[in-house]
Amino acid sequence: MKKQQFHLPDGMIYLDGNSLGPLPRNSIERVIAMMRDEWGQMLITGWNKAGWMMQSTKIGDRIGRLIGAPKGTVIMGDTLSIKVYQAVAAALRLNPERKIVLSDNGNFPTDLYMTQGLLNSLDQGHELRIVNPQDISASLTDDVAVLLLTEVDYRTGRLHDMAAITQQAQARGIVVIWDLAHSAGALPVDLAGCNADFAVGCTYKYLNGGPGAPAFIYVRADLQDRVEPALSGWLGHIAPFEFDLEYRPGTGIERMRVGTPPILQLASLDAALDLWDDVDMAELRARSIALSELFIKQVELHCPQLTLASPRDPARRGSQVSFQFSEGYAAMQALIARGVVGDFRAPDIMRFGFTPLYTETSDVLGAVEILRDIMDNRIWDTPEFKQKSAVT
Amino acid sequence: MKKQQFHLPDGMIYLDGNSLGPLPRNSIERVIAMMRDEWGQMLITGWNKAGWMMQSTKIGDRIGRLIGAPKGTVIMGDTLSIKVYQAVAAALRLNPERKIVLSDNGNFPTDLYMTQGLLNSLDQGHELRIVNPQDISASLTDDVAVLLLTEVDYRTGRLHDMAAITQQAQARGIVVIWDLAHSAGALPVDLAGCNADFAVGCTYKYLNGGPGAPAFIYVRADLQDRVEPALSGWLGHIAPFEFDLEYRPGTGIERMRVGTPPILQLASLDAALDLWDDVDMAELRARSIALSELFIKQVELHCPQLTLASPRDPARRGSQVSFQFSEGYAAMQALIARGVVGDFRAPDIMRFGFTPLYTETSDVLGAVEILRDIMDNRIWDTPEFKQKSAVT
Repeated sequence: MKKQQFHLPDGMIYLDGNSLGPLPRNSIERVIAMMRDEWGQMLITGWNKAGWMMQSTKIGDRIGRLIGAPKGTVIMGDTLSIKVYQAVAAALRLNPERKIVLSDNGNFPTDLYMTQGLLNSLDQGHELRIVNPQDISASLTDDVAVLLLTEVDYRTGRLHDMAAITQQAQARGIVVIWDLAHSAGALPVDLAGCNADFAVGCTYKYLNGGPGAPAFIYVRADLQDRVEPALSGWLGHIAPFEFDLEYRPGTGIERMRVGTPPILQLASLDAALDLWDDVDMAELRARSIALSELFIKQVELHCPQLTLASPRDPARRGSQVSFQFSEGYAAMQALIARGVVGDFRAPDIMRFGFTPLYTETSDVLGAVEILRDIMDNRIWDTPEFKQKSAVT
Repeated sequence: MKKQQFHLPDGMIYLDGNSLGPLPRNSIERVIAMMRDEWGQMLITGWNKAGWMMQSTKIGDRIGRLIGAPKGTVIMGDTLSIKVYQAVAAALRLNPERKIVLSDNGNFPTDLYMTQGLLNSLDQGHELRIVNPQDISASLTDDVAVLLLTEVDYRTGRLHDMAAITQQAQARGIVVIWDLAHSAGALPVDLAGCNADFAVGCTYKYLNGGPGAPAFIYVRADLQDRVEPALSGWLGHIAPFEFDLEYRPGTGIERMRVGTPPILQLASLDAALDLWDDVDMAELRARSIALSELFIKQVELHCPQLTLASPRDPARRGSQVSFQFSEGYAAMQALIARGVVGDFRAPDIMRFGFTPLYTETSDVLGAVEILRDIMDNRIWDTPEFKQKSAVT
């Protein structure tokens, strides 16, 4: 769709935009302008004059469009880990009589780790209950306070049914948090339509904000003024520049701010989002499915050594395809050495992201051709490859 | 000392580097190089190839040199608010029998707010006790778990005696956290010599990392492996890429990592720190005192309307000088409009930072000359100024 808008090194087929998106062509200029004309010329007055202080909500609204979130329900800041912590802490306080946080073992580990750290600190008898993804529905019992799920499994690409699960959980009095790390910019999301309570996500994958780009948090509009922030930083205060000794939360989504926002990263992200403003998410999804279906078909035809680890039904899959292979780590290194960049996730997952903004049919066909050669000739086992790997 | 190394707009006398440092001349090039040659060319492999993953500790060590912290005791990440939360949460767990966090009303509000949010969440009967700065010593009682102080008061510049207070507190079994927001790069700090337990700070003030530059946290070496991280993010895990379901803390300072580090901001900060590697902090301190003494003398001579709000003894003062004036907000607006940039802190503080890397004697004299004109003629009260303010 927009391959020309990205810097992609010659000879590289990049199928790892689900881990770190490539550099958009306009990002460097935007960051230079921010540094030179805003920081360099305005210095401290840039917070108001250049609108730095408003970037977190302005960019939040731009992302909101991609995830079905109304204006004023998304704000940027911190990292996904921090946003998970904020969401779980807030959700628990909305459901104080219950002690279980439910998640699944397909969730990205930091979501589980941050919850463990929170629950350990609270020391109030909470429990993190981790089940298999397919057992979530059956595990939505009346003792569950919070359901914390990542919509798209980072290893297999398996997609949860966000609308159905949210409805089931809320019918049981459970507060629902969705992690959209592998959803935002990957497929259509309808947070408001699903009535999700909270959502979090990152912006360095499909959204191409750059390494360490800030995270986002969504809080449903009617919940916002009931949220008691655990991470009650000064910029979430209702009047930060009054320098009160007592925290009083800001109105609406503003109270999910914590500290000073990272303005260089936000400038880069803002430039990257220019590429999204006219994207139709249904069209993007159709292209993503076409690419991944083609990839599966070609790999299964040419590389019988690999076993599909992703759901076969594209409606149950995000925008990535994974294959299992016992020597997957070494095979992926060989693939990367040949310019086809995917990634490996323990224990045996070779993972390939399909990002229609810059991935085309020819990339898919080219990648499979190289993969086939690597598999047929077990390139990772050859002395030449081993020697080269030892050197670099 | 190094004024030529900074972009400073013509005609501006910048006395607000204690709020946001100016743009170093080499920062833009460094950020461009990171974006173009690392992100643009290496994409996901930049985490290893370009050393992004190590930036948080490498830069931590560079800052460590400025604050008396040995190698391996400082790590970058997040915001100061988040780092305060990490430190207070960890300190409380090191002192589980006690329930009081002691601070003073000269602390920056976010330190107090973050502590309030933490204690509210814990719901374990903790109390944040806030006293006057001069009453800290007398308040170091045996029920205090944690002492949380900012060394330099953000309003008055009043400097706590870090060594003496730390020793007194530790003798009472209190865990001590120092916030160095207005210390790092402003004056010599000797964390190891003081035996401080934890320290935190930001890098966008005296260190010139840029708006939203990441914060740092120091944990004394012998404490590190006893710290139980409340913000237990995946990059603080001992083996993040094994994707375990259970959090196991990393070794040493690594466990204070949370999520993905902001690589653009770190590149900018890294460039800014090039200017610090050869700075002798004792010499910097001498210059800072010379500048601030001159400023006080000249203001008191020429602007009798202003009352010194900072300690008169330079040994009890950080690298800023504040004056009280009932119409300080308006007067500061008039001053900024004339190119002398300080800032205002409620209710009546006009604050001026002295940053010897780029502030010279001629800046001090020039600033006082303009301040004198503004005060003598009450410029903020003139129709011309009011009209201009209404337009801009």
